[in-house]
Amino acid sequence: MKIIETIPELRQALAKESGNIGLVPTMGYLHEGHLSLVRMARRENECTVVSIFVNPMQFGANEDLSSYPRDTSRDLKLLEIEEVDYVFIPAVSDMYPTGFSTWVEVERVTERLEGASRPGHFRGVATVVQKLFHIVEPNRAYFGQKDAQQAVVIKKMVLDLNMYIDIVLGATIRESDGLALSSRNSYLNSEERKAASVLYRALTTAKQMWQQGECDAGRLKDEMRSVIQREPLAEINYVSIADSNTLEELSKIDGPALASLAVNIGSTRLIDNFILE
Amino acid sequence: MKIIETIPELRQALAKESGNIGLVPTMGYLHEGHLSLVRMARRENECTVVSIFVNPMQFGANEDLSSYPRDTSRDLKLLEIEEVDYVFIPAVSDMYPTGFSTWVEVERVTERLEGASRPGHFRGVATVVQKLFHIVEPNRAYFGQKDAQQAVVIKKMVLDLNMYIDIVLGATIRESDGLALSSRNSYLNSEERKAASVLYRALTTAKQMWQQGECDAGRLKDEMRSVIQREPLAEINYVSIADSNTLEELSKIDGPALASLAVNIGSTRLIDNFILE
Repeated sequence: MKIIETIPELRQALAKESGNIGLVPTMGYLHEGHLSLVRMARRENECTVVSIFVNPMQFGANEDLSSYPRDTSRDLKLLEIEEVDYVFIPAVSDMYPTGFSTWVEVERVTERLEGASRPGHFRGVATVVQKLFHIVEPNRAYFGQKDAQQAVVIKKMVLDLNMYIDIVLGATIRESDGLALSSRNSYLNSEERKAASVLYRALTTAKQMWQQGECDAGRLKDEMRSVIQREPLAEINYVSIADSNTLEELSKIDGPALASLAVNIGSTRLIDNFILE
Repeated sequence: MKIIETIPELRQALAKESGNIGLVPTMGYLHEGHLSLVRMARRENECTVVSIFVNPMQFGANEDLSSYPRDTSRDLKLLEIEEVDYVFIPAVSDMYPTGFSTWVEVERVTERLEGASRPGHFRGVATVVQKLFHIVEPNRAYFGQKDAQQAVVIKKMVLDLNMYIDIVLGATIRESDGLALSSRNSYLNSEERKAASVLYRALTTAKQMWQQGECDAGRLKDEMRSVIQREPLAEINYVSIADSNTLEELSKIDGPALASLAVNIGSTRLIDNFILE
């Protein structure tokens, strides 16, 4: 496994690779969710590149950039075990040199949900992902379904801008009580950790109602909200049932729908989703 | 010479090319300026692609999209003579399918000059050029120095977004009286055509003053303005002397400077520039 810290060194190394390249972009502090993507990339490509880059451009001014958890030496041990070919750990000043001023803006699908709660977030995501795509020139790139809107945004960017890269999504990996794995779960104290399963419980309730024939999105959302409201440490940011492609809010479910929510548990903001299809 | 009208067909054809690819993006109605770029591309690459696409996204609501001159059959004859390998003429609906919503925004260098006069213009330019770059994957792409700010914007996009494409600029080609070739010159009646050389005369005056040691940008611009004001059919849009990289307006010239101007001749808006270096 080669650890590479500069863009020209990575370009030079990858120029010697002849087979398909799989890219797993991450912000580090890796968990089983990331590792499941790495294993998919390893299976499907001759060469696997994992990037570790806490992208400042996707954090808002009042968000957790400075406290975002980092443990590169642990990350490298985990990736070594997975027999990753290249780990790319660029410096912020290499990705965004002084005077950097170009952005990729995906409109519409970024307006709601995370985009509404986190202005500028998806501009930062789309821009850094496009840069990584240009640097690595992967055949396939791997993202987690847990960040459902991010996946929609990246697929839209790739489609609209004619980027010939397969976007592969990996299923959300969960703890035994259903909590979706996230690097931000490390912010939770033990009481909050117990409460955090409320996101999964709310989604499960909605899914069961839907499986039993309830197609009225308003009723499903009411029920999700009441599950969350019974949890004293939880505060709802949003609860949504949207078209899974356009992310437009639905009143009635009559095609693939994305049930998603953002909930504050204490001071930690968590997100989760189910696809109803 | 192969004429290709769809993106998948072009991708398929180019996949069989093994040498370097040179791309000359145009909006058609070709003149010697375009052809000089085509000849550069032919000299420097094994395979030359010329695109003809009047990009609606770079025209403002009150601009000349509907009247923009077009003559594809003449363009094809000219390109045939130059022994171009591929001419790519996509439909608007292929480049911008329903629901298209992703943009490349180059900030700062787009704020002034053409960017200030034509809001959204460079967003449209950067987006279509990026799409063409992804579709064609050229090693080199060729643009005219006549659109000086466009060249700065595209170089900045390529730099900021890690696109590994050489941007090659071709010198402005001029009529015998100095008028820079432009497809929009076809809008001029014979009286306006005579008046149109005023852009070149103003730039020449500024260059001569600078060569004689005048470094005060204000004085150079005053002189350019007075040359133009003596021409009754001309109305100044802007006159600028700017840093040739940042496009920030200069008060004193102490490095490479871009002297540029936009002037209405009757109802036709023309631009031109000299680099002072």
